[in-house]
Amino acid sequence: MAQAIFLVSAPDQPGLIARFASFFFDLGLNIVDSSNHASRDESADRRFYMRLVVDLAGLASTIALERLGESASRRTLETAFAALATELGATWSVGYDDHKEKVALLVTKESACLYDLVLRQRQGDLACEIALVISNHATLEPVAESFRIPFYALPVDSKTKAEQESRILELVRRHHVSLVVLARYMQILSDRFLGDAPPVINIHHGFLPAFQGARPYHQAFARGVKLIGATAHYATKDLDEGPIIEQDALRVHHGMGADELSRIGRDVERVVLARAVRAHLERRVVIEGRRTIVL
Amino acid sequence: MAQAIFLVSAPDQPGLIARFASFFFDLGLNIVDSSNHASRDESADRRFYMRLVVDLAGLASTIALERLGESASRRTLETAFAALATELGATWSVGYDDHKEKVALLVTKESACLYDLVLRQRQGDLACEIALVISNHATLEPVAESFRIPFYALPVDSKTKAEQESRILELVRRHHVSLVVLARYMQILSDRFLGDAPPVINIHHGFLPAFQGARPYHQAFARGVKLIGATAHYATKDLDEGPIIEQDALRVHHGMGADELSRIGRDVERVVLARAVRAHLERRVVIEGRRTIVL
Amino acid sequence: MAQAIFLVSAPDQPGLIARFASFFFDLGLNIVDSSNHASRDESADRRFYMRLVVDLAGLASTIALERLGESASRRTLETAFAALATELGATWSVGYDDHKEKVALLVTKESACLYDLVLRQRQGDLACEIALVISNHATLEPVAESFRIPFYALPVDSKTKAEQESRILELVRRHHVSLVVLARYMQILSDRFLGDAPPVINIHHGFLPAFQGARPYHQAFARGVKLIGATAHYATKDLDEGPIIEQDALRVHHGMGADELSRIGRDVERVVLARAVRAHLERRVVIEGRRTIVL
Amino acid sequence: MAQAIFLVSAPDQPGLIARFASFFFDLGLNIVDSSNHASRDESADRRFYMRLVVDLAGLASTIALERLGESASRRTLETAFAALATELGATWSVGYDDHKEKVALLVTKESACLYDLVLRQRQGDLACEIALVISNHATLEPVAESFRIPFYALPVDSKTKAEQESRILELVRRHHVSLVVLARYMQILSDRFLGDAPPVINIHHGFLPAFQGARPYHQAFARGVKLIGATAHYATKDLDEGPIIEQDALRVHHGMGADELSRIGRDVERVVLARAVRAHLERRVVIEGRRTIVL
Repeated sequence: MAQAIFLVSAPDQPGLIARFASFFFDLGLNIVDSSNHASRDESADRRFYMRLVVDLAGLASTIALERLGESASRRTLETAFAALATELGATWSVGYDDHKEKVALLVTKESACLYDLVLRQRQGDLACEIALVISNHATLEPVAESFRIPFYALPVDSKTKAEQESRILELVRRHHVSLVVLARYMQILSDRFLGDAPPVINIHHGFLPAFQGARPYHQAFARGVKLIGATAHYATKDLDEGPIIEQDALRVHHGMGADELSRIGRDVERVVLARAVRAHLERRVVIEGRRTIVL
Repeated sequence: MAQAIFLVSAPDQPGLIARFASFFFDLGLNIVDSSNHASRDESADRRFYMRLVVDLAGLASTIALERLGESASRRTLETAFAALATELGATWSVGYDDHKEKVALLVTKESACLYDLVLRQRQGDLACEIALVISNHATLEPVAESFRIPFYALPVDSKTKAEQESRILELVRRHHVSLVVLARYMQILSDRFLGDAPPVINIHHGFLPAFQGARPYHQAFARGVKLIGATAHYATKDLDEGPIIEQDALRVHHGMGADELSRIGRDVERVVLARAVRAHLERRVVIEGRRTIVL
Repeated sequence: MAQAIFLVSAPDQPGLIARFASFFFDLGLNIVDSSNHASRDESADRRFYMRLVVDLAGLASTIALERLGESASRRTLETAFAALATELGATWSVGYDDHKEKVALLVTKESACLYDLVLRQRQGDLACEIALVISNHATLEPVAESFRIPFYALPVDSKTKAEQESRILELVRRHHVSLVVLARYMQILSDRFLGDAPPVINIHHGFLPAFQGARPYHQAFARGVKLIGATAHYATKDLDEGPIIEQDALRVHHGMGADELSRIGRDVERVVLARAVRAHLERRVVIEGRRTIVL
Repeated sequence: MAQAIFLVSAPDQPGLIARFASFFFDLGLNIVDSSNHASRDESADRRFYMRLVVDLAGLASTIALERLGESASRRTLETAFAALATELGATWSVGYDDHKEKVALLVTKESACLYDLVLRQRQGDLACEIALVISNHATLEPVAESFRIPFYALPVDSKTKAEQESRILELVRRHHVSLVVLARYMQILSDRFLGDAPPVINIHHGFLPAFQGARPYHQAFARGVKLIGATAHYATKDLDEGPIIEQDALRVHHGMGADELSRIGRDVERVVLARAVRAHLERRVVIEGRRTIVL
């Protein structure tokens, strides 16, 4: 049976859990899973976050029909929820597990993250459709083709950047893409692109905020760090400064050259990126300033 | 302001989150933190678990006075909650953050876990009072004394075991102890003791269920494992078979002898034991057959 | 320039490092990398293990020509080394980095480990040639084909097992395979097969020695463990009892069902298997009874 | 029987392993353990590092007496080794396992790292003598006293800094201290102090090079990182820029406030500091510019 996932952010106040939980209970809709968090940031106003997974079977119940009207449906449910949210000053979004989000992967020449995401999606670990792969090189076209995913090679240089980004945006729109994943796309995106695009997740091959910028493994080697990390974050105008979704690190030692650090790094990267994409698709991630709440 | 922590386990049914959350909201009591889980064990009936941290400031509110009577208090709150729990077939417990649980530590000769728990308690990381230390040897008496904790040396051999356990139980009762921690207490406790004592948490210096029984590091060395683990669990009649609360593991290599494995192991042990004791004291742990739910 | 990797195991005695290092130095061959270990197992005779990576450029030097004869070559070098080894009672093997080992992958229906090994090999992280993929099902044929690796479907049932294994052995021989990797091959291999085959590395989806046998994730779930592990080991007659090469574990929690444990498990498995295969190919692994030394 | 540990750094050239190993073998001294590494830093000249643990029992052998003279002793052994080192352009140091290094701990008010190091030393895990504890506050005097370690309270402010540092240096000299450990000593040391003092190891409560400077946990919280790390490094003039000896990190999540990050951080810190001190005492650490080699 279909499920809906509601993700809510509201100014904190007493009774919010009861209000949101009762909303669904009173409609005869069962909450299958829920989690919540109230921010502790003393410097700002406290906020409340909640994620609710609701079984939609109840939409056919007498109660639901009574309360939502003859046409008890996802749309009327959303309308009713919107009224509650407005009352509570909440922002919210909803997704349905029988409606897979469409994802665009942007890549350059490295295949590890591309393969990893596609294979996980095929395995059923990422609830999405990989609608297309876009690259500034043709290198990975055979990979996309072997999985029968449309591939677009859009070369770019400093002169054609604006135009290339426009074409990416057009493809993104035409394919109804709601998430862009930079799976080792070695180009900086313009503010304009980020402003117009759906959410963009990037993987940085370092433990941010250390080693920002280029060649983080070489920086790490030169500094002699004993851990190699990776960071998945939402892309924002300030490169490498977007809200962090997921990080991890693996131990390394002096005996490893920059090559081996890269190899270790690739292992961390793809795991971290996959976890971040998964959390986003499962509607677990709320952005709160420079931070994220992962419910 | 004081807080109460309610921990609930009930047969699953629609509306439980709303029911429990509304109970407190309707009394004017704010839920500061909450988490819940519904078991997925298909072989058994689904159960629902919830932990609610409630701000007791609301007990002085007009609403509370109205609903709980003039004497709105922890006792009347508990009575009201008990009625709801009975209706829902739930088992539950409650604790108050201004009432510290009293803990007894049972040790033998090794000091690492003893020091670790006492220091964390002094640091404010374990919300409890370490009421007494009991040992079958006098070795660690100076350690307990340096922290001004009562120490009881109760030697034991096969003949005096029943009597010694009775004396431990007597001490436990006299000090109003509600949690016994086996901080490397190298004696097997009888079924009778475990039946009469409050909950008992044990630390096993291995990754259970591997390496049950004695000398797990020697077993681990002989088997050439590449990770050394530790397991904190509730003690039950079947040694090393009680519900696992927490586990962790560290990497080791062929170059490490049994001595070094022990050293590494001690580091894992004390961290794992401290996390388990902390989770228990914060009322996060529900026992469900051979498993635990850590909310 | 080509390099040779010597892997040596000998009864311990004073001067072994000097003897082995001087052997190459006296021939004008530079040692690029070396590591060694002396066992500490008190119950047995001490043994000494050494791995030496030698730059073969020196084979063209005057010294080498003088000492190994006009035909200073890999063969004469090996002959000279064999004489030293005999004198010291050592067993040894040698490999050359310009001669890639041929590997056979045995699979069933799951693609994760297959993809992972092939992609790492293509990336240059595994110095071998994947000569063929053998399966008891045809499911993964398209995967092998997309990488242009020969694929053989050899169905098996209890009646045809002996014959099927003979055909595998024949393929292994015909392709000059020196390492067989069970990349989630869900069949038990007979003693006869293991006796006749080159070394066989298996991945067990659990933290051995816990959860031996079938369905380890379901066992892990039922026991409520807080870590999910994987173990790569040499296959021996006693299933799940072979010398462990590599292990790792990831944290899990009560909220994860058997499905999610499997997903987490797959991530650990493929990393652990790849590390084990890599260590074997780099001639780092010495088997010592039920243990391994990974130099 | 006593052992010597030689730690060597030399310009790389063929035959170094043979040269160093043969030196001891030719004297009848058995090498119990050894490891080596050649740097791969292409930008600089290649260097070779070797650590050799030598059994001194052989000093009484006929061979040793013959070669080192009637007075075969540690001194004559060192003289002979010095000659070899000079020939090879090597720098080196030697330590003896029956001569424990004397260590000074500098602390302020936090006890966790102090307890941890003292307890490990008492347990036999750190082969040193903790000669004295110095603090700018009297807070931890009872802790030092409970272990019968001399404690010196040397308050400091901006005016008295030079004088206070002079007194620390004087104490360090008087107690023959060869290693200073900053176990959460919350003062910046002057260049002059660092120039005159023996090696100084510091623990930074963050994953360097991220979060340099003050209040790293608050920085980490504000940035929303998902891992909390700690870094042990040699103190140099540029604070937080000294060569890193050891690092580690633990996972954290959005639900943790700055307090809990601190608690998690303390666990990482003390483990990381203890490992670094241990590696230094075992003569495993070579400083190479801004990096370390940990053999």
